[in-house]
This record gives sequence, C-alpha cells and structure tokens, in this order.
Amino acid sequence: MRTWSFAKGHGTENDFVIIVDRHDLLSPGTDDVRYLCDRRVGVGGDGFLRAVKAEHIDGWDGDPDLWFMDYRNADGSLAEMCGNGIRVFARHLADEGLIGAEVSIATRAGAKQVSVLSDGRVRVDMSPVRLMAESRVTHGGCAYDAVGVDVGNPHAVCGTDDLEALDLTIAPEFDAEVYPAGTNVEFVCGLGDHHVAMRVFERGVGETRSCGTGTVAAATAARAWAGERDDASWRVDVPGGSLEIAFHGDAITMTGPAVLVAHGEVVLPD
Amino acid sequence: MRTWSFAKGHGTENDFVIIVDRHDLLSPGTDDVRYLCDRRVGVGGDGFLRAVKAEHIDGWDGDPDLWFMDYRNADGSLAEMCGNGIRVFARHLADEGLIGAEVSIATRAGAKQVSVLSDGRVRVDMSPVRLMAESRVTHGGCAYDAVGVDVGNPHAVCGTDDLEALDLTIAPEFDAEVYPAGTNVEFVCGLGDHHVAMRVFERGVGETRSCGTGTVAAATAARAWAGERDDASWRVDVPGGSLEIAFHGDAITMTGPAVLVAHGEVVLPD
Repeated sequence: MRTWSFAKGHGTENDFVIIVDRHDLLSPGTDDVRYLCDRRVGVGGDGFLRAVKAEHIDGWDGDPDLWFMDYRNADGSLAEMCGNGIRVFARHLADEGLIGAEVSIATRAGAKQVSVLSDGRVRVDMSPVRLMAESRVTHGGCAYDAVGVDVGNPHAVCGTDDLEALDLTIAPEFDAEVYPAGTNVEFVCGLGDHHVAMRVFERGVGETRSCGTGTVAAATAARAWAGERDDASWRVDVPGGSLEIAFHGDAITMTGPAVLVAHGEVVLPD
Repeated sequence: MRTWSFAKGHGTENDFVIIVDRHDLLSPGTDDVRYLCDRRVGVGGDGFLRAVKAEHIDGWDGDPDLWFMDYRNADGSLAEMCGNGIRVFARHLADEGLIGAEVSIATRAGAKQVSVLSDGRVRVDMSPVRLMAESRVTHGGCAYDAVGVDVGNPHAVCGTDDLEALDLTIAPEFDAEVYPAGTNVEFVCGLGDHHVAMRVFERGVGETRSCGTGTVAAATAARAWAGERDDASWRVDVPGGSLEIAFHGDAITMTGPAVLVAHGEVVLPD
C-alpha cells in the first residue's frame, strides 16, 4: 500500500489530480494514473499532473532546473500540453511556494512562460499558434467551412449562430485527409465586441466543459473572420467559465482561473 | 472561505464524501453538499455522509450518544438510509478510532446494528425487510412479473436470463398505483447455488454500479423464487463488486467492502 500527497483542482471545470514528485521517486504507472483519475474508485479527474524537476526527464535538453509538467490523460496515456492543466499546475506550485509569480514551465511541447496573477488567475504564453487551411466539417445535417488552427494540437473551428441547438453527443465529421490524426472541433458564436462563446468536441473524449487550447483556436479563428491584425484581447466563454485570449504581435496568451479545491493523502493499491 | 477535513471512500463503487462533525458545528447546506459532490468543481461523490452525534438531531428519540449518519444525495436532498454508505461511514469512524467493531449507528431509518470485520468488510443488519405483491414492470419490449420488496425504500425485482442485453439508459416502466412514490428496479439473473448477478435502475438516478438496499431486495426475491425458508447466505454480484446477504430467522444482514481512498482538507466557497 502506498500513500501519496495530492491536490485536486480545476480550470474552467476541467479538473486534475496533482502530485509533486520533485526527485522523480514515485514513478506513477498507467494503472496508478487510471486509479487516481477514476471518479468512483479513486480521487477523480479529467487528467493527472505530476510536478517533477526537468533534470529527470529523458530527452529534455532545456534548463534542467525547471519544473516539468508530466501531463497524462485519465486513461494513463501521455499528452504534450494542456492549457487548463498548466494554469492549475502553476497555481498549485505557487501556493506551495515552489515557484515565483513569473516562471517558465517545462512541458512535452517545450517551455511555456507562465504568470501567476495576484487576482488568482494564471496567464500562459500559448505561442506559437498557426492558422491553417479551411476544410469541411459536417454535423447535425449542417456543413461548416471550418478554420484550421494549430495550437500544438489540431483544431477545426466552425462558426454558428446557435450554440444551444447543437447535439454534441454526436461527433462532428471532418476531412480525414486534412486531419489524419483526428482533430478537436470548436463551434463558435459571436456574443459582442471581441467576445465569443464556444462549445468543443474534444478528440477522443467528446464534449467537455472547457478546452484551453480550443479557446485559443476559437479566438484565433474569430480574429481571422473579423480581419483583425492589431493587438487585442478576446473573451471566450465556455460551459465551464470564461478565458481571456490576448494577441500581442506574434504572441498569444491565455488568461484564466485556476482553483485548488482539496489537498490530502490518497492510498494507492499495490 | 471555509476549510473542512474530509475523507472519500466507496462501497462496491458507490462513492461518498465524508465529514466528521461531532458537535454539529459545520451545518452543511444544500449548496455545500452539491459542491462537495460535484465531480469537477468539488471533490466528487454519489452522496455525502456527515457523522454527527445523535443528540444534535431534531426528532431523534433514541440513544443520544450514538453517531448519526446524516446522509444526503449528491443534489443535496435528504435520504433515509444508504446500504453502501453506512458501510463506508462505519469503516471511516472505526479507522479514526471513534467507534468499536460492534456498534449501533443512528440513521433517519432508525438505529442500525453494524459490525466492522477484521477483513475490512462491514456487516449491517438491514432488517426489517418485507416482501410485497407482484406487479408488472415493462422494459425493452419485455414484461416482467416483478416481486415487490420494501427495504425501507421500495424495490421491484425482475428475473431475467440475460443481464448483458438490457439497455438501462432507458428507464423501466412500473405500475404507478403500486409505487406512487416511484421505485428502484432490479434485474436479477441466477449464476449458481445461492449466487445471483444484478443490475439496478435507481429511482431518480438511472443505472448505478451498485445499490446496497437493492442487493438485499434481489436476494430476498431470489430466495422467494427458490421457495427457501431456512437460514442461508446469498452472494449478489453488481457491476461494482459483490455483496453477501444472509438470512437468519427474521434478520437479514448485508456484508460488503468499504474502502477509504483519500483523506484531506477541502476548501469551500463562501
């Protein structure tokens, strides 16, 4: 029987089990991650975040003294980056006194510049983001000319006038030649000046309450539709809350909430 | 901001957030319970268990020194009794040194005799249980002569040869004159000598991984179908595990696992 210290937190209702493992001693396996993320048998989370010093990560060739975000999906598989996860990760490390307010966090998608703001929110530099070609998405009998956006992971962003009417228990269909590894699909509706609402169908998951990289994709597409090139901030509402996406030259930042809900000890089966 | 100590545990994958509030100081409201049971924004659980001394419970006229199980559903509503919950409740109090191995637990359904076994399981006296009349249940184009069983809450137990084939995303239909306040519906399939498997559609919830009172109802119905009157133990398998239901004269006990997964501090919003 093993007992690990853990925290649980969420960003716009995308929730995570977090452990700090500075010296890489815990070696959580796939079964451990599944257990921790199991909502009935374990603690419960959409994903798992392990904080470990980058020096212990094979293949990391950046600053070895950075904290590395070892992100796993609830099924135990590795993932490169998680926009909501990195905010919760940084907030937790800041709360624990392990990082300062301005820090670089190592991820499988490279080092990310993060600011822990005094109002409790966390800002993350999500650059680089690339606009890609349009392609066809169909859903519920409608066809959309979806804007492609690469935020490290792929997104197809569709404009719509009626988010409520979408039945996202049904998967949207996209062009598999454009997205051979699949894609997240965002539906975006304008609400006002630099303000949109979004619902997302995540690749391999289904509809979720929020997708951090998806909000960056949504704002990038909305900006392209508006023909805007100047610096500006966009607000993107998702079912789980609201995020601010800011464009400064070529840089794109995401700012949003990060809430630590519980801290404790969890017993893992042998 | 309030911070409460909590534990999380499950019995056959029916999971609970537990707090010990001996002196009735915390007064969790409906919103608090919903928050604690929220799987993304809070800790997450099917239900909430508060341990408070019975002397603080209005209307309790039994021994005021008993621990009272203040059980709430995840939506914050009160419930009388929970067969899986009381095992987890007793296991936690025993782990914390607050009760001995043989104890009476006060509930809204009266005092229940509970034994915390050395193998980690917990036995609960579920008496009295009453067999009621048969009535018609229909589901998936099939009609069943369902045995009624009152375990403090109502159950309609249907025999079937093929549990796997049932689509319990669809609610069974029952006779509203027999069950004016609704009913849980169990489908039961014989597996061998004194051994059945069960799936359950819980009133107001849908299919769940386990229902403690439902396993008592299932064993009671299976025993009636077998025409058995002698003392005997039945094993009832549910999707979340396995329970043992024993008949001794007029007494009926349920024995099953109770697992404490995590202990910690949770922050509640103001």
